[in-house]
Amino acid sequence: MPLVRIWLQAGKPASYRTAISDQVYQAMRETLNIPDGDRFQVITEHSPGQLIADPSFMGMDRSDEGFVLVQIFLSRGRTTEVKQALYHHIVEKLAISPGIRPDDVMITLTEVGLDDWSFGRGEAQYVLHPPDWAVKREKIPA
Amino acid sequence: MPLVRIWLQAGKPASYRTAISDQVYQAMRETLNIPDGDRFQVITEHSPGQLIADPSFMGMDRSDEGFVLVQIFLSRGRTTEVKQALYHHIVEKLAISPGIRPDDVMITLTEVGLDDWSFGRGEAQYVLHPPDWAVKREKIPA
Amino acid sequence: MPLVRIWLQAGKPASYRTAISDQVYQAMRETLNIPDGDRFQVITEHSPGQLIADPSFMGMDRSDEGFVLVQIFLSRGRTTEVKQALYHHIVEKLAISPGIRPDDVMITLTEVGLDDWSFGRGEAQYVLHPPDWAVKREKIPA
Repeated sequence: MPLVRIWLQAGKPASYRTAISDQVYQAMRETLNIPDGDRFQVITEHSPGQLIADPSFMGMDRSDEGFVLVQIFLSRGRTTEVKQALYHHIVEKLAISPGIRPDDVMITLTEVGLDDWSFGRGEAQYVLHPPDWAVKREKIPA
Repeated sequence: MPLVRIWLQAGKPASYRTAISDQVYQAMRETLNIPDGDRFQVITEHSPGQLIADPSFMGMDRSDEGFVLVQIFLSRGRTTEVKQALYHHIVEKLAISPGIRPDDVMITLTEVGLDDWSFGRGEAQYVLHPPDWAVKREKIPA
Repeated sequence: MPLVRIWLQAGKPASYRTAISDQVYQAMRETLNIPDGDRFQVITEHSPGQLIADPSFMGMDRSDEGFVLVQIFLSRGRTTEVKQALYHHIVEKLAISPGIRPDDVMITLTEVGLDDWSFGRGEAQYVLHPPDWAVKREKIPA
Protein backbone atom coordinates (compact mmCIF):
# COMPACT_ATOMS: atom_id res chain seq x y z
CA MET A 1 0.00 0.00 0.00
CA PRO A 2 2.69 2.52 0.49
CA LEU A 3 3.42 4.92 -2.32
CA VAL A 4 7.11 5.73 -2.46
CA ARG A 5 8.45 8.92 -4.03
CA ILE A 6 12.21 9.08 -4.50
CA TRP A 7 14.28 11.99 -5.78
CA LEU A 8 17.97 11.54 -6.51
CA GLN A 9 20.76 13.45 -8.18
CA ALA A 10 21.10 12.96 -11.93
CA GLY A 11 23.96 11.19 -13.65
CA LYS A 12 23.68 7.74 -12.15
CA PRO A 13 23.48 4.51 -14.21
CA ALA A 14 20.13 2.72 -14.44
CA SER A 15 21.41 0.01 -12.11
CA TYR A 16 21.85 2.60 -9.37
CA ARG A 17 18.18 3.54 -9.56
CA THR A 18 17.15 -0.11 -9.65
CA ALA A 19 19.19 -0.83 -6.54
CA ILE A 20 17.50 2.00 -4.65
CA SER A 21 14.10 0.76 -5.75
CA ASP A 22 14.88 -2.81 -4.64
CA GLN A 23 16.42 -1.88 -1.32
CA VAL A 24 13.67 0.50 -0.23
CA TYR A 25 11.07 -2.13 -1.13
CA GLN A 26 12.96 -4.81 0.84
CA ALA A 27 13.32 -2.55 3.87
CA MET A 28 9.57 -1.93 3.79
CA ARG A 29 8.85 -5.64 3.47
CA GLU A 30 10.94 -6.37 6.56
CA THR A 31 9.76 -3.58 8.83
CA LEU A 32 6.24 -2.62 7.72
CA ASN A 33 5.03 -6.17 7.00
CA ILE A 34 3.73 -5.16 3.60
CA PRO A 35 2.81 -8.15 1.44
CA ASP A 36 4.83 -9.49 -1.46
CA GLY A 37 4.33 -7.31 -4.53
CA ASP A 38 3.16 -4.20 -2.70
CA ARG A 39 5.52 -2.01 -4.66
CA PHE A 40 4.55 1.34 -6.12
CA GLN A 41 7.33 3.84 -6.64
CA VAL A 42 8.17 6.96 -8.57
CA ILE A 43 11.92 7.61 -8.91
CA THR A 44 13.24 10.64 -10.75
CA GLU A 45 16.66 12.23 -11.22
CA HIS A 46 17.38 15.91 -10.82
CA SER A 47 20.08 18.53 -11.05
CA PRO A 48 21.43 20.08 -7.84
CA GLY A 49 19.39 23.20 -8.65
CA GLN A 50 16.21 21.13 -8.62
CA LEU A 51 16.90 18.90 -5.62
CA ILE A 52 18.06 21.13 -2.81
CA ALA A 53 19.29 19.91 0.58
CA ASP A 54 21.23 21.78 3.19
CA PRO A 55 24.73 20.27 3.39
CA SER A 56 24.91 20.05 7.19
CA PHE A 57 21.50 20.49 8.84
CA MET A 58 20.97 18.25 11.87
CA GLY A 59 24.67 17.42 12.01
CA MET A 60 24.83 15.55 8.71
CA ASP A 61 27.50 15.76 6.01
CA ARG A 62 25.44 15.72 2.82
CA SER A 63 26.93 15.61 -0.68
CA ASP A 64 25.61 17.19 -3.86
CA GLU A 65 25.99 14.00 -5.86
CA GLY A 66 24.78 11.46 -3.33
CA PHE A 67 21.78 13.01 -1.61
CA VAL A 68 18.60 10.96 -1.87
CA LEU A 69 15.17 12.02 -0.67
CA VAL A 70 12.61 9.31 0.07
CA GLN A 71 8.98 10.20 0.78
CA ILE A 72 6.60 7.40 1.74
CA PHE A 73 2.81 7.67 1.86
CA LEU A 74 1.46 4.82 4.03
CA SER A 75 -1.59 3.92 6.09
CA ARG A 76 -1.82 5.29 9.61
CA GLY A 77 -1.15 3.03 12.55
CA ARG A 78 2.54 2.19 12.67
CA THR A 79 4.25 2.82 16.00
CA THR A 80 7.21 5.13 16.37
CA GLU A 81 9.37 2.03 16.91
CA VAL A 82 8.29 0.56 13.58
CA LYS A 83 9.04 3.84 11.83
CA GLN A 84 12.48 3.97 13.44
CA ALA A 85 13.16 0.41 12.28
CA LEU A 86 12.10 1.41 8.77
CA TYR A 87 14.53 4.35 8.69
CA HIS A 88 17.37 2.18 9.96
CA HIS A 89 16.73 -0.59 7.46
CA ILE A 90 16.46 1.74 4.47
CA VAL A 91 19.73 3.49 5.32
CA GLU A 92 21.52 0.23 6.10
CA LYS A 93 20.46 -1.37 2.85
CA LEU A 94 21.23 1.65 0.68
CA ALA A 95 24.74 1.73 2.18
CA ILE A 96 25.31 -1.82 0.97
CA SER A 97 23.79 -1.27 -2.49
CA PRO A 98 24.07 0.98 -4.44
CA GLY A 99 26.44 2.33 -1.76
CA ILE A 100 24.88 5.54 -0.47
CA ARG A 101 26.41 7.29 2.53
CA PRO A 102 24.01 7.21 5.54
CA ASP A 103 24.29 10.98 5.88
CA ASP A 104 22.88 11.35 2.36
CA VAL A 105 19.56 9.60 2.96
CA MET A 106 16.60 11.70 4.06
CA ILE A 107 13.27 9.98 4.66
CA THR A 108 9.86 11.41 5.45
CA LEU A 109 6.49 9.73 5.93
CA THR A 110 2.92 10.90 5.37
CA GLU A 111 0.13 8.84 6.87
CA VAL A 112 -3.26 8.32 5.23
CA GLY A 113 -6.36 6.23 5.96
CA LEU A 114 -7.18 2.70 4.89
CA ASP A 115 -9.98 4.07 2.71
CA ASP A 116 -7.53 6.34 0.90
CA TRP A 117 -6.30 3.60 -1.44
CA SER A 118 -7.63 2.13 -4.66
CA PHE A 119 -5.25 -0.38 -6.26
CA GLY A 120 -7.29 -0.72 -9.43
CA ARG A 121 -10.78 -1.21 -10.88
CA GLY A 122 -12.06 1.70 -8.81
CA GLU A 123 -12.32 -0.43 -5.70
CA ALA A 124 -11.22 0.62 -2.22
CA GLN A 125 -9.67 -2.74 -1.44
CA TYR A 126 -8.68 -2.06 2.18
CA VAL A 127 -12.21 -1.05 3.16
CA LEU A 128 -13.47 -4.58 2.60
CA HIS A 129 -10.20 -6.35 3.35
CA PRO A 130 -7.96 -4.51 5.82
CA PRO A 131 -4.30 -5.51 5.57
CA ASP A 132 -2.93 -8.07 8.04
CA TRP A 133 -0.88 -5.63 10.08
CA ALA A 134 -3.99 -3.49 10.68
CA VAL A 135 -6.22 -6.42 11.63
CA LYS A 136 -3.70 -7.64 14.18
CA ARG A 137 -3.84 -4.37 16.09
CA GLU A 138 -6.53 -4.02 18.75
CA LYS A 139 -8.12 -1.17 16.93
CA ILE A 140 -8.03 -0.75 13.18
CA PRO A 141 -6.47 2.63 12.44
CA ALA A 142 -8.78 5.14 10.83
CA MET B 1 -9.37 22.66 -3.54
CA PRO B 2 -7.93 19.32 -4.32
CA LEU B 3 -4.42 19.16 -5.72
CA VAL B 4 -4.10 16.31 -8.18
CA ARG B 5 -0.78 14.66 -8.99
CA ILE B 6 -0.79 12.26 -11.92
CA TRP B 7 2.08 10.11 -13.18
CA LEU B 8 1.73 8.20 -16.45
CA GLN B 9 3.94 6.24 -18.80
CA ALA B 10 5.73 8.25 -21.50
CA GLY B 11 4.99 8.09 -25.19
CA LYS B 12 1.36 9.18 -25.24
CA PRO B 13 0.03 12.01 -27.46
CA ALA B 14 -0.89 15.30 -25.79
CA SER B 15 -4.58 14.51 -26.26
CA TYR B 16 -4.16 11.46 -24.02
CA ARG B 17 -2.90 13.63 -21.17
CA THR B 18 -5.64 16.17 -21.74
CA ALA B 19 -8.29 13.45 -21.60
CA ILE B 20 -6.95 12.19 -18.27
CA SER B 21 -6.91 15.72 -16.90
CA ASP B 22 -10.50 16.34 -18.02
CA GLN B 23 -11.89 13.04 -16.79
CA VAL B 24 -10.33 13.17 -13.35
CA TYR B 25 -11.61 16.72 -12.93
CA GLN B 26 -15.13 15.69 -14.03
CA ALA B 27 -15.14 12.70 -11.68
CA MET B 28 -14.18 15.01 -8.81
CA ARG B 29 -16.88 17.49 -9.78
CA GLU B 30 -19.52 14.76 -9.66
CA THR B 31 -18.48 12.98 -6.47
CA LEU B 32 -16.68 15.52 -4.29
CA ASN B 33 -18.94 18.46 -5.07
CA ILE B 34 -16.01 20.69 -5.84
CA PRO B 35 -17.03 23.95 -7.50
CA ASP B 36 -16.61 24.80 -11.16
CA GLY B 37 -13.01 25.72 -11.90
CA ASP B 38 -11.47 24.01 -8.88
CA ARG B 39 -8.82 22.38 -11.02
CA PHE B 40 -5.17 22.19 -10.04
CA GLN B 41 -3.18 19.33 -11.51
CA VAL B 42 0.37 18.27 -12.22
CA ILE B 43 0.68 15.56 -14.88
CA THR B 44 4.04 14.15 -15.89
CA GLU B 45 5.19 11.28 -18.12
CA HIS B 46 7.82 8.76 -17.12
CA SER B 47 9.77 5.74 -18.31
CA PRO B 48 8.97 2.33 -16.80
CA GLY B 49 12.17 2.63 -14.75
CA GLN B 50 10.85 5.81 -13.15
CA LEU B 51 7.22 4.83 -12.62
CA ILE B 52 7.22 1.41 -10.99
CA ALA B 53 4.11 -0.64 -10.24
CA ASP B 54 3.87 -4.31 -9.42
CA PRO B 55 2.14 -6.06 -12.36
CA SER B 56 -0.29 -8.13 -10.28
CA PHE B 57 -0.52 -6.90 -6.67
CA MET B 58 -4.05 -7.08 -5.23
CA GLY B 59 -5.20 -9.26 -8.11
CA MET B 60 -4.77 -6.67 -10.86
CA ASP B 61 -3.31 -7.14 -14.32
CA ARG B 62 -1.23 -4.00 -14.77
CA SER B 63 0.58 -3.08 -17.98
CA ASP B 64 3.86 -1.24 -18.40
CA GLU B 65 2.43 1.15 -21.00
CA GLY B 66 -0.96 1.84 -19.47
CA PHE B 67 -0.40 2.22 -15.74
CA VAL B 68 -1.52 5.55 -14.30
CA LEU B 69 -1.01 6.72 -10.74
CA VAL B 70 -3.34 9.41 -9.37
CA GLN B 71 -2.64 11.07 -6.04
CA ILE B 72 -5.17 13.57 -4.70
CA PHE B 73 -4.61 15.96 -1.80
CA LEU B 74 -8.00 17.11 -0.50
CA SER B 75 -9.61 18.53 2.63
CA ARG B 76 -10.56 16.13 5.38
CA GLY B 77 -14.17 15.18 5.88
CA ARG B 78 -15.34 13.01 3.01
CA THR B 79 -16.97 9.73 4.01
CA THR B 80 -15.68 6.37 2.89
CA GLU B 81 -18.70 6.13 0.60
CA VAL B 82 -17.81 9.38 -1.14
CA LYS B 83 -14.24 8.20 -1.61
CA GLN B 84 -15.46 4.91 -3.07
CA ALA B 85 -17.69 6.82 -5.49
CA LEU B 86 -14.71 8.95 -6.49
CA TYR B 87 -12.60 5.89 -7.27
CA HIS B 88 -15.39 4.32 -9.31
CA HIS B 89 -16.06 7.48 -11.29
CA ILE B 90 -12.41 8.12 -12.11
CA VAL B 91 -11.87 4.58 -13.35
CA GLU B 92 -15.14 4.52 -15.29
CA LYS B 93 -14.38 7.79 -17.03
CA LEU B 94 -10.77 6.95 -17.88
CA ALA B 95 -11.97 3.70 -19.46
CA ILE B 96 -14.17 5.72 -21.82
CA SER B 97 -11.54 8.34 -22.60
CA PRO B 98 -8.62 8.08 -23.21
CA GLY B 99 -9.37 4.36 -22.85
CA ILE B 100 -7.39 3.16 -19.84
CA ARG B 101 -7.93 -0.36 -18.53
CA PRO B 102 -9.48 -0.30 -15.02
CA ASP B 103 -6.69 -2.53 -13.71
CA ASP B 104 -4.17 0.15 -14.70
CA VAL B 105 -5.56 2.96 -12.55
CA MET B 106 -4.19 3.36 -9.03
CA ILE B 107 -5.56 6.16 -6.86
CA THR B 108 -4.51 7.36 -3.43
CA LEU B 109 -5.76 10.24 -1.31
CA THR B 110 -4.10 12.39 1.34
CA GLU B 111 -6.32 14.52 3.53
CA VAL B 112 -5.40 17.99 4.81
CA GLY B 113 -7.15 20.74 6.77
CA LEU B 114 -9.25 23.62 5.51
CA ASP B 115 -6.56 26.02 6.69
CA ASP B 116 -3.95 24.21 4.60
CA TRP B 117 -4.91 25.96 1.37
CA SER B 118 -4.04 29.32 -0.13
CA PHE B 119 -5.37 29.80 -3.66
CA GLY B 120 -3.55 33.06 -4.22
CA ARG B 121 -2.70 36.48 -2.74
CA GLY B 122 -1.45 34.80 0.42
CA GLU B 123 -4.95 34.37 1.74
CA ALA B 124 -6.29 31.21 3.41
CA GLN B 125 -9.61 31.39 1.62
CA TYR B 126 -11.31 28.43 3.33
CA VAL B 127 -10.69 29.82 6.82
CA LEU B 128 -13.04 32.72 6.18
CA HIS B 129 -15.28 30.94 3.67
CA PRO B 130 -15.49 27.17 4.18
CA PRO B 131 -16.56 25.28 1.05
CA ASP B 132 -20.22 24.28 0.68
CA TRP B 133 -19.70 20.57 1.29
CA ALA B 134 -17.98 21.34 4.61
CA VAL B 135 -20.63 23.79 5.81
CA LYS B 136 -23.38 21.29 5.11
CA ARG B 137 -21.90 18.75 7.49
CA GLU B 138 -22.87 18.91 11.16
CA LYS B 139 -19.33 19.66 12.17
CA ILE B 140 -16.83 21.45 10.01
CA PRO B 141 -13.82 19.16 9.57
CA ALA B 142 -10.66 20.42 11.20
CA MET C 1 11.93 19.81 8.84
CA PRO C 2 9.55 20.91 6.20
CA LEU C 3 9.85 19.34 2.78
CA VAL C 4 8.98 21.86 0.08
CA ARG C 5 7.78 20.81 -3.38
CA ILE C 6 7.58 23.58 -5.96
CA TRP C 7 6.29 23.37 -9.51
CA LEU C 8 6.72 26.31 -11.89
CA GLN C 9 6.29 27.02 -15.56
CA ALA C 10 9.30 26.25 -17.77
CA GLY C 11 11.43 28.82 -19.54
CA LYS C 12 12.74 30.81 -16.60
CA PRO C 13 16.44 31.52 -16.00
CA ALA C 14 18.20 29.63 -13.18
CA SER C 15 18.26 32.80 -11.09
CA TYR C 16 14.45 32.80 -11.09
CA ARG C 17 14.37 29.35 -9.54
CA THR C 18 17.04 30.27 -7.03
CA ALA C 19 15.07 33.34 -5.98
CA ILE C 20 11.95 31.26 -5.36
CA SER C 21 13.97 28.75 -3.35
CA ASP C 22 15.53 31.51 -1.22
CA GLN C 23 12.32 33.42 -0.62
CA VAL C 24 10.22 30.42 0.37
CA TYR C 25 12.95 29.34 2.76
CA GLN C 26 13.18 32.84 4.29
CA ALA C 27 9.39 33.05 4.69
CA MET C 28 9.45 29.71 6.51
CA ARG C 29 12.30 30.86 8.73
CA GLU C 30 10.34 33.95 9.75
CA THR C 31 6.92 32.41 10.33
CA LEU C 32 7.46 28.74 11.22
CA ASN C 33 10.54 29.27 13.39
CA ILE C 34 12.44 26.56 11.58
CA PRO C 35 16.15 26.56 12.43
CA ASP C 36 18.94 27.83 10.20
CA GLY C 37 19.70 25.31 7.46
CA ASP C 38 16.38 23.47 7.59
CA ARG C 39 16.04 23.62 3.84
CA PHE C 40 14.91 20.69 1.74
CA GLN C 41 13.26 21.52 -1.56
CA VAL C 42 12.42 19.99 -4.91
CA ILE C 43 11.80 22.55 -7.65
CA THR C 44 10.89 21.49 -11.18
CA GLU C 45 9.77 23.31 -14.34
CA HIS C 46 6.87 22.21 -16.49
CA SER C 47 4.95 23.01 -19.64
CA PRO C 48 1.42 24.42 -19.32
CA GLY C 49 0.11 20.98 -20.30
CA GLN C 50 1.84 19.45 -17.30
CA LEU C 51 1.15 22.14 -14.70
CA ILE C 52 -2.55 22.94 -14.89
CA ALA C 53 -4.28 25.68 -12.91
CA ASP C 54 -7.67 27.19 -13.48
CA PRO C 55 -7.15 30.81 -14.62
CA SER C 56 -9.76 32.38 -12.32
CA PHE C 57 -10.87 30.00 -9.55
CA MET C 58 -11.46 31.73 -6.20
CA GLY C 59 -11.39 35.13 -7.86
CA MET C 60 -7.75 35.05 -8.94
CA ASP C 61 -6.26 36.14 -12.24
CA ARG C 62 -3.70 33.41 -12.93
CA SER C 63 -1.28 33.45 -15.85
CA ASP C 64 0.07 30.53 -17.84
CA GLU C 65 3.67 31.73 -17.55
CA GLY C 66 3.71 32.88 -13.95
CA PHE C 67 1.74 30.31 -11.98
CA VAL C 68 3.69 28.67 -9.15
CA LEU C 69 2.47 25.83 -6.98
CA VAL C 70 4.08 25.36 -3.56
CA GLN C 71 3.38 22.26 -1.48
CA ILE C 72 4.87 22.06 2.01
CA PHE C 73 5.01 18.93 4.18
CA LEU C 74 5.54 19.99 7.80
CA SER C 75 5.02 18.71 11.34
CA ARG C 76 1.57 19.06 12.84
CA GLY C 77 0.94 21.72 15.45
CA ARG C 78 1.03 25.13 13.80
CA THR C 79 -2.00 27.32 14.44
CA THR C 80 -4.18 28.68 11.68
CA GLU C 81 -2.70 32.11 12.40
CA VAL C 82 0.83 30.84 11.82
CA LYS C 83 -0.24 29.22 8.55
CA GLN C 84 -1.87 32.46 7.43
CA ALA C 85 1.33 34.36 8.24
CA LEU C 86 3.29 31.81 6.23
CA TYR C 87 1.07 32.29 3.16
CA HIS C 88 1.32 36.07 3.42
CA HIS C 89 5.08 36.04 3.79
CA ILE C 90 5.68 33.68 0.89
CA VAL C 91 3.51 35.72 -1.46
CA GLU C 92 4.96 39.02 -0.29
CA LYS C 93 8.53 37.85 -0.77
CA LEU C 94 7.94 36.24 -4.16
CA ALA C 95 6.41 39.51 -5.36
CA ILE C 96 9.66 41.30 -4.51
CA SER C 97 11.93 38.63 -5.99
CA PRO C 98 11.76 37.09 -8.54
CA GLY C 99 8.66 39.23 -9.07
CA ILE C 100 5.70 36.84 -9.09
CA ARG C 101 2.18 38.23 -9.12
CA PRO C 102 0.31 37.38 -5.86
CA ASP C 103 -2.54 35.86 -7.86
CA ASP C 104 -0.11 33.36 -9.34
CA VAL C 105 1.03 31.77 -6.08
CA MET C 106 -0.87 28.75 -4.81
CA ILE C 107 0.24 27.13 -1.56
CA THR C 108 -0.92 23.97 0.16
CA LEU C 109 0.26 22.27 3.34
CA THR C 110 0.25 18.64 4.47
CA GLU C 111 0.90 17.92 8.13
CA VAL C 112 2.83 14.91 9.41
CA GLY C 113 4.07 13.71 12.81
CA LEU C 114 7.35 14.42 14.55
CA ASP C 115 8.29 10.75 14.16
CA ASP C 116 7.76 10.99 10.40
CA TRP C 117 11.19 12.51 9.73
CA SER C 118 14.66 11.07 9.38
CA PHE C 119 17.26 13.64 8.36
CA GLY C 120 20.01 11.11 7.83
CA ARG C 121 21.79 8.04 9.30
CA GLY C 122 18.44 6.29 9.71
CA GLU C 123 17.70 8.21 12.89
CA ALA C 124 14.33 9.78 13.77
CA GLN C 125 15.92 12.93 15.13
CA TYR C 126 12.72 14.62 16.36
CA VAL C 127 11.70 11.63 18.50
CA LEU C 128 14.67 12.17 20.80
CA HIS C 129 14.96 15.91 20.28
CA PRO C 130 11.69 17.64 19.46
CA PRO C 131 12.14 20.98 17.69
CA ASP C 132 11.98 24.18 19.75
CA TRP C 133 8.60 25.32 18.47
CA ALA C 134 7.05 22.00 19.51
CA VAL C 135 8.63 21.94 22.97
CA LYS C 136 7.34 25.43 23.70
CA ARG C 137 3.74 24.35 23.22
CA GLU C 138 1.90 22.90 26.23
CA LYS C 139 1.49 19.58 24.50
CA ILE C 140 3.87 18.22 21.93
CA PRO C 141 1.92 17.59 18.73
CA ALA C 142 1.59 13.92 17.80
